[in-house]
Amino acid sequence: MADSLRAEIAKLGGAVKTLKKEGKAGSDECKDSILKLGELRAALQELLKEEGDSDSHLDVPDKDILNNLLTRRMFVVPSFAIYNGVAGLYDFGPPACALKANFLNRWRQHFVLEENMLEIESTNLTPYAVLKTSGHVDKFSDLMMKDTGDGTCYRADKLLEEVIDNLLKDEMLPEKTREEYRHIRAQADAYTCEEIGDLLKNRFKVKAPATGNELSDPFPFNLMFGTQIGPSGNLQGYLRPETAQGIFVNFPKLLTYNGGQMPFACAQIGTGFRNEIAPRGGLLRVREFCMAEIEHFVHPEKKEHPRFPAVADDVLPLFPKSNQIGDGKVQQLSVGEAVKAGTINNETLGYFIARVARFLESVGILKTHLRFRQHLDTEMAHYASDCWDAEIYTSYGWVECVGIADRACFDLEQHAKATNTLMTANENFKTPVKMDFGVASFNKKAMGMAFKKAAKQLYKDIDEALQNVEFARDLEAKLEADGKAAFKSCNGEFELTRAMLSIKISSKNVSTRKYTPSVVEPSFGVGRILYAIFEHSYYARGDKRQVMRFKPAIAPVKCAVCPLTNGDAKLNAVVDDIARALRRRNVSFKVDSTGASIGKRYSRMDEIGR
Amino acid sequence: MADSLRAEIAKLGGAVKTLKKEGKAGSDECKDSILKLGELRAALQELLKEEGDSDSHLDVPDKDILNNLLTRRMFVVPSFAIYNGVAGLYDFGPPACALKANFLNRWRQHFVLEENMLEIESTNLTPYAVLKTSGHVDKFSDLMMKDTGDGTCYRADKLLEEVIDNLLKDEMLPEKTREEYRHIRAQADAYTCEEIGDLLKNRFKVKAPATGNELSDPFPFNLMFGTQIGPSGNLQGYLRPETAQGIFVNFPKLLTYNGGQMPFACAQIGTGFRNEIAPRGGLLRVREFCMAEIEHFVHPEKKEHPRFPAVADDVLPLFPKSNQIGDGKVQQLSVGEAVKAGTINNETLGYFIARVARFLESVGILKTHLRFRQHLDTEMAHYASDCWDAEIYTSYGWVECVGIADRACFDLEQHAKATNTLMTANENFKTPVKMDFGVASFNKKAMGMAFKKAAKQLYKDIDEALQNVEFARDLEAKLEADGKAAFKSCNGEFELTRAMLSIKISSKNVSTRKYTPSVVEPSFGVGRILYAIFEHSYYARGDKRQVMRFKPAIAPVKCAVCPLTNGDAKLNAVVDDIARALRRRNVSFKVDSTGASIGKRYSRMDEIGR
Repeated sequence: MADSLRAEIAKLGGAVKTLKKEGKAGSDECKDSILKLGELRAALQELLKEEGDSDSHLDVPDKDILNNLLTRRMFVVPSFAIYNGVAGLYDFGPPACALKANFLNRWRQHFVLEENMLEIESTNLTPYAVLKTSGHVDKFSDLMMKDTGDGTCYRADKLLEEVIDNLLKDEMLPEKTREEYRHIRAQADAYTCEEIGDLLKNRFKVKAPATGNELSDPFPFNLMFGTQIGPSGNLQGYLRPETAQGIFVNFPKLLTYNGGQMPFACAQIGTGFRNEIAPRGGLLRVREFCMAEIEHFVHPEKKEHPRFPAVADDVLPLFPKSNQIGDGKVQQLSVGEAVKAGTINNETLGYFIARVARFLESVGILKTHLRFRQHLDTEMAHYASDCWDAEIYTSYGWVECVGIADRACFDLEQHAKATNTLMTANENFKTPVKMDFGVASFNKKAMGMAFKKAAKQLYKDIDEALQNVEFARDLEAKLEADGKAAFKSCNGEFELTRAMLSIKISSKNVSTRKYTPSVVEPSFGVGRILYAIFEHSYYARGDKRQVMRFKPAIAPVKCAVCPLTNGDAKLNAVVDDIARALRRRNVSFKVDSTGASIGKRYSRMDEIGR
Repeated sequence: MADSLRAEIAKLGGAVKTLKKEGKAGSDECKDSILKLGELRAALQELLKEEGDSDSHLDVPDKDILNNLLTRRMFVVPSFAIYNGVAGLYDFGPPACALKANFLNRWRQHFVLEENMLEIESTNLTPYAVLKTSGHVDKFSDLMMKDTGDGTCYRADKLLEEVIDNLLKDEMLPEKTREEYRHIRAQADAYTCEEIGDLLKNRFKVKAPATGNELSDPFPFNLMFGTQIGPSGNLQGYLRPETAQGIFVNFPKLLTYNGGQMPFACAQIGTGFRNEIAPRGGLLRVREFCMAEIEHFVHPEKKEHPRFPAVADDVLPLFPKSNQIGDGKVQQLSVGEAVKAGTINNETLGYFIARVARFLESVGILKTHLRFRQHLDTEMAHYASDCWDAEIYTSYGWVECVGIADRACFDLEQHAKATNTLMTANENFKTPVKMDFGVASFNKKAMGMAFKKAAKQLYKDIDEALQNVEFARDLEAKLEADGKAAFKSCNGEFELTRAMLSIKISSKNVSTRKYTPSVVEPSFGVGRILYAIFEHSYYARGDKRQVMRFKPAIAPVKCAVCPLTNGDAKLNAVVDDIARALRRRNVSFKVDSTGASIGKRYSRMDEIGR
């Protein structure tokens, strides 16, 4: 349809040109054609707008007007403004600070207390070894390009998005090209270093936007803030990029604290840091932010949830991967049905998705502006079973605010391997269960000659590994087929040969067994949700007065005390009485006894929320 | 008295030696003498103990036993323990995490709500310029010495303290030397780099304790964790060493938020970082810690406090500087008297000292184990008017937990100068007040030739500076005496000459005047107070059971639900009912339905506090 409009515009445009050439610029025919041309162009624009953002009918405030209010009433201000600020750092002023405290109290109530979770607080400073194991040292990076002239740094995927946005501004671009560009834009952050370099430098011939200089090839820039712990310069540390690792490394102690009982969850509220290359997007992309994370540890084969029936009927706006590839539509589906159909991988994951939805609504996120988007297979980490993002619609479009992932047993296994620590829970059987396992017969002479002192520990490690019957079968098969096989334990890698051992499968009755728990992780970006709350709570009244309509539970100020006349001693005594009573009941309030008109004082209070 | 005991011991010791030489080792005389010698030595030891720590009568738990409990019940555990940990970093497990949240709620209630303070949250990452202005880049350091062999780092003052502690172990050291050593120890952290180097290397011939290698000369090591903000490597940043600067740089916005009204206070709870050279002392000297700071902005000449009468009769254990130099005794004095006598500099400072005392008691600090120690003139920053530390007695001795300082207008003035920002408040007079000020007559030709384009701004800057009549008088006097004078403004330093201007004093009636507020700052080390609460809440019952007797308001778990028989469905339903009711009322609880005896379950709960 857009292409046929474009053809009409081109035709009519040509006709107008011809009329003008012929000196008929003032004729009725020419005037009519120009009028018609205007209409056609408007129709094309409207069409493109709808296609570009299918959710443009959702109501959001103008971001400049809102940001003006947020700064003016000191909800959020750029940090160190008198020193010209630092990009990506913001301070929370009094109303946002109170709002955040209330928000976190609600969060604790909704998750930690109601779900009987443990809560811990680990440090921001994190040593190299922990983040090497978690993969952040190697993989927590964005692709960067440098202006070869002045050294300005750009994020490659953002450059690509900008290039495409500029190209798409040309209304006359044929639909096919337009579609291809949109496709490229959608996966801007999924390209490899080489792919995005090729697109930017060879295909689109992009130069540094500010100077027009050549750009360097893209290269990965690690997003962690590094620092030296201690005075020797020998202990590399980072500011944590997430709070989760502080929970994982404490797993054995937490399990003991919980009396060995599984499943259980541990929560943490704390700061995360991310050294953004060129932060933009206001409060949505910052270098320091508050996170609230939950790690729910559960048996990998028992992901049912006892309280699942309580949420099974909750109907949620789901955006499964099949729909993202298919019709692009969000689907209203009950959690119960979604788990039954396998759309959501398991009950525990479904339970948390539903609980997150309830929480977000309770703090003021509009139901109409919320969806749960499933990660595509290409987006998801190789170890994860399933992952859903709670996305909230704002003036910046859909924003990922909570990630709810089934991370399987990846994290615990990695830390167990790296530190040679047991990161397992015990499963007890009421009646003993028959279980297969491998038994090795060692040729101790051959092993002793090959591995010397290490042999003794190796017997133990192999025996332990063979408890897993599949591992035992694989190892035996490999030895039989290749005559040798590598065996990796915490003490190193060893090459075993056929001559050293043979493995038989046996079975025994056991009443207990060790396993590495799976982790279901709901991870909240607190700052982003707060920003979405600002947008969803804002409205301008008919008389242009601005109101922040916060939910009472999180409103920074619950009520205002405004004496009608100013400086009246009797009335002031009443104000003091009321203030005392409110304080005693722990109700936050604000006294406004300035001489301003009551209407003016009302609207002042409206702006900081009531 | 100690010296006469030593003389007796030496004499009797000599006599015993002689008797033994004479073969009379088994004689009654010899036996009696040895018995007597033992008694004398015990008496000497007792005497030295009392002198060394005059507060040794105060009851504190054994720190090893307590620390064992704290780790075992996961109050506090070393961070990243499975990676062998990092010195000076600790995680808060579930009970301490809940305790801390309750503590901070109490703090907010007691200070922020009851005093109507503003509260903000600024960032941990702080750019170089801010901490250069505050003085931390240049002065926030400890003196360090390195093992010239293996590079191990030592804190010079701690080395000195250890050396002296070892020397003092010699009971026979004469009293005069002993006293001199104690004097040196007391000011270990006050010596200059050269002085402490001389003491350690020349006088005490100290080598590296671990290796016996030579030590380097002491040199200052900055205690801030540095990092690079952004990818360019051009923006040096630090993790904040205190939260206060985040408030100071926001002063103009905070004053506007407060409707221009003075005085007012702003609070902040947040993390502080300190890259300790060699942290020891468990929870008392850590590299990352929670702080709660208040900056109370007040007119420098009006430090009365409207609510002072409400605390004036509070009797506090004060340890003024005069007593520290004098009899070394703590004095019980009402705040009202202390301010009247000038012991405490002003009402606002006194008010906060009293409020801090009330707060600490309300969270479980023993009154007997608390004192307020005034800083000696040599300890205090040059700009401060007065400073008191709330010190709490623990098994580590007296520990500084809260600092309450009148920092005058130093911080605001420094930031104003560095950023050329107005950091002032307005004082309004009901009836206009006659005020003197300076008026300059400029020789614009001479100034124009000397300062070119800068002259125009310079006229304004000089005019503004001359509003301060004392400055005006000084400048004119200097010009008259020396024929020239330096003038410093935010735009640089300029040399003015007699030929350029002359200054007359005039007066006018004004109804408003700008001033830079003073700051009274109560600053809380939250982690240290929590540790003191652990110590003061701990006791071992007669049957050796350990109990944490927390105040209800901050107890991590308010009650336990323990069904008397295990696995009884009817009883479990009752437990569920109770649990639901408690949850609804936001009362934290713990269900213990394990099969353990009720006595055992009671004592489990005792250990995490009820």
